[in-house]
Amino acid sequence: MRVIKNINDWKDAAFFWPRPYGLVPTMGCLHDGHLTLIKKGRLDNATLIASVFVNPTQFGSTEDFKIYPQDIEADLCKLDDQGVDIVFMPCVQEMYPAGFDTYVDVGQIASRLEGQYRPEHFRGVATIVSKLFSIFQPTRAYFGQKDFQQSLVIKHVSKDLNLNVDVVVVSTARESDGLAFSSRNSYLKKDERVAATVLYKALTGAIKLYESGLLDVASIRNEITRTIESEPLAMIDYVSISDAQTLVELKQIDRQAVAAVAVRFGETRLLDNVYFDY
Amino acid sequence: MRVIKNINDWKDAAFFWPRPYGLVPTMGCLHDGHLTLIKKGRLDNATLIASVFVNPTQFGSTEDFKIYPQDIEADLCKLDDQGVDIVFMPCVQEMYPAGFDTYVDVGQIASRLEGQYRPEHFRGVATIVSKLFSIFQPTRAYFGQKDFQQSLVIKHVSKDLNLNVDVVVVSTARESDGLAFSSRNSYLKKDERVAATVLYKALTGAIKLYESGLLDVASIRNEITRTIESEPLAMIDYVSISDAQTLVELKQIDRQAVAAVAVRFGETRLLDNVYFDY
Repeated sequence: MRVIKNINDWKDAAFFWPRPYGLVPTMGCLHDGHLTLIKKGRLDNATLIASVFVNPTQFGSTEDFKIYPQDIEADLCKLDDQGVDIVFMPCVQEMYPAGFDTYVDVGQIASRLEGQYRPEHFRGVATIVSKLFSIFQPTRAYFGQKDFQQSLVIKHVSKDLNLNVDVVVVSTARESDGLAFSSRNSYLKKDERVAATVLYKALTGAIKLYESGLLDVASIRNEITRTIESEPLAMIDYVSISDAQTLVELKQIDRQAVAAVAVRFGETRLLDNVYFDY
Repeated sequence: MRVIKNINDWKDAAFFWPRPYGLVPTMGCLHDGHLTLIKKGRLDNATLIASVFVNPTQFGSTEDFKIYPQDIEADLCKLDDQGVDIVFMPCVQEMYPAGFDTYVDVGQIASRLEGQYRPEHFRGVATIVSKLFSIFQPTRAYFGQKDFQQSLVIKHVSKDLNLNVDVVVVSTARESDGLAFSSRNSYLKKDERVAATVLYKALTGAIKLYESGLLDVASIRNEITRTIESEPLAMIDYVSISDAQTLVELKQIDRQAVAAVAVRFGETRLLDNVYFDY
């Protein structure tokens, strides 16, 4: 496994690595969710590249950039175990040198849900992912369904800016009690960690209602909200049921849809979602 | 010479064309300014690509998009004469399909001068150029010095988004009376065309003052303004003397600087500029 810190080192090395390239962009602190992306990427591509970079531009000024968990040594072990070929691990100066002043802005799709709570977040995501796509020119890039709005934003960027990368979305990996893997789970206090299982419980409950024939979004949304609110440590930011392509809120589940929640447990804000297969 | 209308046709053909690629992005209606770019691009590269696309996103709603001059037949003759290999001539739908919603935003450098008068202009330029750079992945791309702020914006985009294109700026081509070639010159009425020679007269006058030892920007700027205002048909938008890298206005010419003017003649708005070699 080759660890690359500088973009120019990749430019020198790229010639030797066989195509197709797969890219798994991460912020490190790798968990089983990341590993499912890497396993899939390993199967699909001749050369697998993983990036580890805590991207400052996707954090708001009051968010957790400075305390975002990092564990480089463990990450390198895990990546090596999975047969990753290239680890790209740049410093902030390498990605955002002095004078950096260009951002990729995605419109409607980025303005909904998370966009309401984290107004600059997707601009930062779109910018760093554009940069990584241009540097590595992968055939495929892998993202987790847990951040499904992020994957939609990145699909838009890849298509609209002709980056020609196939954005592959991989099902959310979960702990045995259903909690979606997230680097931010490490922030949870013991009682918050227990409480956080309510998210998957509420979302699987919604799927059951849908599968039993309920299509009325207000009823399903109320049921999700009621379940989450039964947990006193949970503070809801949003419970959304929307068109899975456009994120426009629905009244009836009359197309492929997604139920998405953002809920705070103490200082920790967690996301989860499930699809309604139509 | 191969004319390509669709991006996918290029993807199929790219394999056969030898590198390095040079790209000359144009909006068509080619004049001697474009031809100097193409001649230089032809000398530097194994494969020369010219694009002809009137880019709607770089025009304001009150601007001249709908009447922008076009002459495809003459353009193709000129490009063929110059030995261009590939002409990319997409329709608007090909570059901006339904659902397009991603823009490249450049900060400070785009906010000055033209940015004050055409607030969305450089966003449109940065977006279309990013797209063209990603589609063709040229080694070099060629732009005219007449639109020197545009070339600075594009240099920023290429560097900040890691597009890895060498942005080559070619000296302004001029008519025998000094007027910079521009597709918009065709809008000028006869008396306006005569009056427009005042721009180069004012700018060369400024160079002479500088070469005679005058470094005080206010004095030089006043002289440019006075000369242009001596022409009754000329309406000044700005007369700027700024740092040639940052476009920050100067008080003294104490570094590489540029004098730039934007002046309206009737309905036609013209740009011109000269460098002060420091």
